[in-house]
Amino acid sequence: MSVLIVGTTALDSIKTPKAENPRLLGGSASHAAVAASFFAPVKLVGGVGEDFPKKYIELYRRHKIDLEGLQMLPGKTFHWSGEYEINMNNRRTLATELGVIETYSPVVPKSFQSAKFVLLANIAPALQSRVLDQLTNPKFVVADSMDLWLNIALADLLQLLKRVDGFVLNDSEAQLLTKEDNVFSALKKIHKLGPKYVIIKKGSHGSILSGPRGFFICPAYPLHKVVDPTGAGDSFVGGMMGYLSTAKGSIDANIRRAMVYGSVTASFCCEGFGLNTTTKTGRTQINQRVKELEALTKF
Amino acid sequence: MSVLIVGTTALDSIKTPKAENPRLLGGSASHAAVAASFFAPVKLVGGVGEDFPKKYIELYRRHKIDLEGLQMLPGKTFHWSGEYEINMNNRRTLATELGVIETYSPVVPKSFQSAKFVLLANIAPALQSRVLDQLTNPKFVVADSMDLWLNIALADLLQLLKRVDGFVLNDSEAQLLTKEDNVFSALKKIHKLGPKYVIIKKGSHGSILSGPRGFFICPAYPLHKVVDPTGAGDSFVGGMMGYLSTAKGSIDANIRRAMVYGSVTASFCCEGFGLNTTTKTGRTQINQRVKELEALTKF
Repeated sequence: MSVLIVGTTALDSIKTPKAENPRLLGGSASHAAVAASFFAPVKLVGGVGEDFPKKYIELYRRHKIDLEGLQMLPGKTFHWSGEYEINMNNRRTLATELGVIETYSPVVPKSFQSAKFVLLANIAPALQSRVLDQLTNPKFVVADSMDLWLNIALADLLQLLKRVDGFVLNDSEAQLLTKEDNVFSALKKIHKLGPKYVIIKKGSHGSILSGPRGFFICPAYPLHKVVDPTGAGDSFVGGMMGYLSTAKGSIDANIRRAMVYGSVTASFCCEGFGLNTTTKTGRTQINQRVKELEALTKF
Repeated sequence: MSVLIVGTTALDSIKTPKAENPRLLGGSASHAAVAASFFAPVKLVGGVGEDFPKKYIELYRRHKIDLEGLQMLPGKTFHWSGEYEINMNNRRTLATELGVIETYSPVVPKSFQSAKFVLLANIAPALQSRVLDQLTNPKFVVADSMDLWLNIALADLLQLLKRVDGFVLNDSEAQLLTKEDNVFSALKKIHKLGPKYVIIKKGSHGSILSGPRGFFICPAYPLHKVVDPTGAGDSFVGGMMGYLSTAKGSIDANIRRAMVYGSVTASFCCEGFGLNTTTKTGRTQINQRVKELEALTKF
């Protein structure tokens, strides 16, 4: 089965202590879509400006991403510039040029409306809800978000959370949302907001799922060097949804393994700028790292 | 087989945002010895003052800890006072009264000198070395340490590291020692200092082993509430050494499972002040949590 992914399709200019990379393909939907493409056909919903490089359209196409839902809008593509500190853990936004995203409203093409697996990658929660409004009968909907929406669009986000099956956020966002330091107490509180499945991402410490079958402690693949973590969270949830959409059996039976596949896909993302390394990987390399993770966690 | 444990035997006065507990039984050797006692007979080497409460001697005895190496010295017992911040992650030392520990030099009784499994729990590295000097033919020696010794006794610690099989430290100490942010790069550098087995503790995020069979990602038991984390690291390494000393087969074959047992023992430590909860637990409860952790990490 295919995955419908909505989110930002952007240009990222990323500075780290060692390098500077202008106008890379970025955005939550781009990272999630490429990650999901290793497992399932992907239908992308997003909006770009007239300056969006043709080479990135070709990149999407190489990953067999269905672009019927990618709108070309008058104006400039959403452009984010950021800088990472020496330890690659803290990042600072240098500039955000919203461009076409400022007035963007997602339109789900007719052929996408019956999608069963839906990933609402990070974008304004009101827009995530607008995508849900256009779907006929989704089976499993997961939303991602970011601290910005917790701060400026909390009401919209809380509305959305009542309508999704799964919610993915990082540990600092979980703390911001619940005022709970303890990750397991935070998970409990987030379930009360709606989602049956809640995943808290902890970067290099892995992630924690809370679902109907209890907790799952998901490891991160050991990386000796992180080049650029931008998009790692999007790759994680994209890979997870891609795997889930094609796995036989129930969500409950597959979601743990799906998280491990997502985690490994995210590890490739961290090893290069933007999507540079992710696009060079493939299912064989992903399977290899999943096998390694199995060995690294056995006791 | 039994475990020989040397370290501090102290009184801890611990303040948290919710409670204050004066003169609890504390110290690295106390925590490690009680943790190890669930798995193996323990021989304790340490020094206490004339004010050391009799009830703590009885506590050791209830755990069948051999006290032939516990010296009663003229003066006061080492006393640490500390305060935890609201999130229980940062602690601040309020007072350190060294007492008898200031001039203490460990004496290993004759009947302890042939010990095979040796845990050099946190104490000045020169004293840890002095214990090694008195042993005839140890089989597996693990040292723990703390940031204080990295700062004021680094030369002693580096000397010690050449003589031990295993070294356990937390992530911030690993960074301090190696100047590496990345935990896997830090592990690589620490091996070069001597130890064949290096374990980096990451608190609620679990721990990472690097050994002859590669890495192991060890989970932490999910705790919804941390009452007092003092001694959790000592309990972890104590439980691990206790388990290892009685397990059949090679160190390599058993150390991963030993770490999981240590991790679970440490989870009980965090649930009460000082040793209050640890001393109320038993092998049955520990085995139960290990089983739970197996289920929580399976994918």
